[in-house]
Amino acid sequence: MKYIDTSVVKESEGKEVCLAGWVHEKRDLGGIKFLLIRDHLGLVQATWTRDRSNEETGRLIDTLKINDVVLLNGKVRKMKQAPGGIEIVPTSIKVLNRSVHPLPLDPTDKVKSGLDTRLNARALDLMTRSNVALFRLEAAILSSCRNYLSEMGLVEVITPKIIATATEGGASLFPTPYFETTAFLAQSPQLYKEQLTLSLGRVFEIATYFRAEPFNTVRHLNEFVSIDVEEAFADAEDVMCLAEGMVRRVHEDILKRCSNELQILGLNIKVPETPFRRITYMEAVEKIRDLGEEFRSGEDLAGKALESLGKSFEGYYFITEWPIKLRPFYTAKSEKNEELSESFDMMYKDLELGSGSKRVSSKDELVQRLRQQGLNPQSFDYHLRVYDYGMPPHAGWAIGFSRLVMAITGAKNIREVVLFPRDRFRLSP
Amino acid sequence: MKYIDTSVVKESEGKEVCLAGWVHEKRDLGGIKFLLIRDHLGLVQATWTRDRSNEETGRLIDTLKINDVVLLNGKVRKMKQAPGGIEIVPTSIKVLNRSVHPLPLDPTDKVKSGLDTRLNARALDLMTRSNVALFRLEAAILSSCRNYLSEMGLVEVITPKIIATATEGGASLFPTPYFETTAFLAQSPQLYKEQLTLSLGRVFEIATYFRAEPFNTVRHLNEFVSIDVEEAFADAEDVMCLAEGMVRRVHEDILKRCSNELQILGLNIKVPETPFRRITYMEAVEKIRDLGEEFRSGEDLAGKALESLGKSFEGYYFITEWPIKLRPFYTAKSEKNEELSESFDMMYKDLELGSGSKRVSSKDELVQRLRQQGLNPQSFDYHLRVYDYGMPPHAGWAIGFSRLVMAITGAKNIREVVLFPRDRFRLSP
Repeated sequence: MKYIDTSVVKESEGKEVCLAGWVHEKRDLGGIKFLLIRDHLGLVQATWTRDRSNEETGRLIDTLKINDVVLLNGKVRKMKQAPGGIEIVPTSIKVLNRSVHPLPLDPTDKVKSGLDTRLNARALDLMTRSNVALFRLEAAILSSCRNYLSEMGLVEVITPKIIATATEGGASLFPTPYFETTAFLAQSPQLYKEQLTLSLGRVFEIATYFRAEPFNTVRHLNEFVSIDVEEAFADAEDVMCLAEGMVRRVHEDILKRCSNELQILGLNIKVPETPFRRITYMEAVEKIRDLGEEFRSGEDLAGKALESLGKSFEGYYFITEWPIKLRPFYTAKSEKNEELSESFDMMYKDLELGSGSKRVSSKDELVQRLRQQGLNPQSFDYHLRVYDYGMPPHAGWAIGFSRLVMAITGAKNIREVVLFPRDRFRLSP
Repeated sequence: MKYIDTSVVKESEGKEVCLAGWVHEKRDLGGIKFLLIRDHLGLVQATWTRDRSNEETGRLIDTLKINDVVLLNGKVRKMKQAPGGIEIVPTSIKVLNRSVHPLPLDPTDKVKSGLDTRLNARALDLMTRSNVALFRLEAAILSSCRNYLSEMGLVEVITPKIIATATEGGASLFPTPYFETTAFLAQSPQLYKEQLTLSLGRVFEIATYFRAEPFNTVRHLNEFVSIDVEEAFADAEDVMCLAEGMVRRVHEDILKRCSNELQILGLNIKVPETPFRRITYMEAVEKIRDLGEEFRSGEDLAGKALESLGKSFEGYYFITEWPIKLRPFYTAKSEKNEELSESFDMMYKDLELGSGSKRVSSKDELVQRLRQQGLNPQSFDYHLRVYDYGMPPHAGWAIGFSRLVMAITGAKNIREVVLFPRDRFRLSP
């Protein structure tokens, strides 16, 4: 099909073009009719006047409604007052599809709608200028993460999403009948990425995972995208450096490549300095108590405790040296204190972006840790075998992609930054 | 951790280094002991002699077995006969983890194992030189596809993998209990990518999808990675050009970037010329009959019919103008003949890589087509609504990532090119 988009119109002065897009706005001043045509890249004005266009086109414009899909033929000419300094004088308009009114929300975004209304008509909601900018920005962030990890020498992998065994206990998994047995949807590539450190050494995966917890917060979804990394012959500090490097690089890349999107979204991005600040779990607990919150050491950081931390620390930072009993079975103990672990959370203010650690690489220790956490080592048979093949010391992390987008964009609800979010109450569209 | 990998050893002549890796091979000639150390990038030789090394290290070498994980300290020196022209004179060796013998298969790949044995001990199987090369090549192919599609202006998206409604009928879906209801694992991003043509215009996604059919072939898996594309204001020919451009680009990229991997795999890659040959479904039927196969026009191409086609056509080609009744409900009819569709399959010899089409963009026609295929339009309520918002004409395709890898590498079984394959009988590891 030989149609052009709005970005090409600017370069087509004096030419006959055929533009494809949606009716964004219409104004009829009698002898002059203005039509704004929108596509995914921008807006172009078409101006009908009796002396320069034909009556038939004028009558057709009268029938147009917001979001009708049209092909507009006409000549491009300069026009200072028009958006982009250019307009089209239409010679003919063909309607490809009509929209049905009233629309459930305003795609021009002048009339704001509530989040539920927006998500119910998400395909339409995504047409607003700010949503197009947001999801173009997200694509750039995704690409930046991958490029950084590849350039650092990590190999991209794709691991199973349907698994036989729960990674960290079964309560939070979706089961699915799988032919003669029952399988589960993976909540993480954890065990697979650890296994791949034997062969590919340093690996990453960015993929969708699943959690069956009945969450009801603005930061959790039941389907989410995780950025996962695992490295042979690495410790927690090694992979923390990799994580902060990736986050810094994302900021650099979007500043370079997404100035248009950042402007539309009104975002003033600053590249964070590395290394990020590192505070220990105990320092975090003390800070929380200093701010007047009651907090027992040994508890997970959540709710008001996190809010206190968010007030104390600007930007990105790590919380290190977590109590071992708060961390998953594959987390290595600290060499200094066996009550503690060689693990970390990556934070942005009060938002947990992800966590990581050095992992257990001894089979005996892993079996012991599984038992301590009430898990049955037999369920992990296929994984434990790998520790007989020559398991290297290794470390890694997982960062939530949408959490990272929230940190960058300041979005308050994770549903805003996911195309079609899935929570306990939302499975459609 | 300050260890180096084998790729750095070459640049370290005369230096003291600490190398991390696995015991690949050991030879003891009495006064001289050779140790080959392997990591994910290559091999390095360590040579122990009584006069240049110490007795303790010699005794430790005696205890080593294939795939033990070691840290080897020593000085790097030139040695013509060693792999890469360099060797390490060990001053100390630390064992980080022992492997347990007998290993289920030979990671040095001298003793070949059957596919089932290999897949049962996949983490170990992946350590062979050819598998490391294969999955590094796959990462490059994946990256090449994404880069091409991004550079062509398509926006990368992430759509739901848990859905409320079957895309093309429910028989081939895995169900999963989803809180108060039942959901399904998506078999394709089809409906979502079509919906996104309204807002983002041209989109792509590369992700894992699921099919519940009890396949038992060398070309099908129940979990697979699909490369999906959808474009607003495009027809079948537009997206065929995009597909052939991507395939050509992948060949160009791996020739440039993966010479080492291609050499290890013994692959002689030629960049396919574009445009790919286009033959119609009827021409394909005639060709099959010419070769002596009985074939009724109107049937799907499979089995012996495909084998015949594979003998007739070298390399990549498209089969176009399929009978409409063989294609999914969202496929647009041909403008020339309403018994036919504006659709295509992309082929490599007798291997179907993927398929695509112009789509139906009229709501009335879509409802009619759903009914014709025995599907209930009410189940597609959330999708049909979008056709009221101003649906543009659009076209797209899906190409199986592992099928593309099979075409490039000549692999005969799709399980060979998937890290941890999932079929009816294999859910572990």
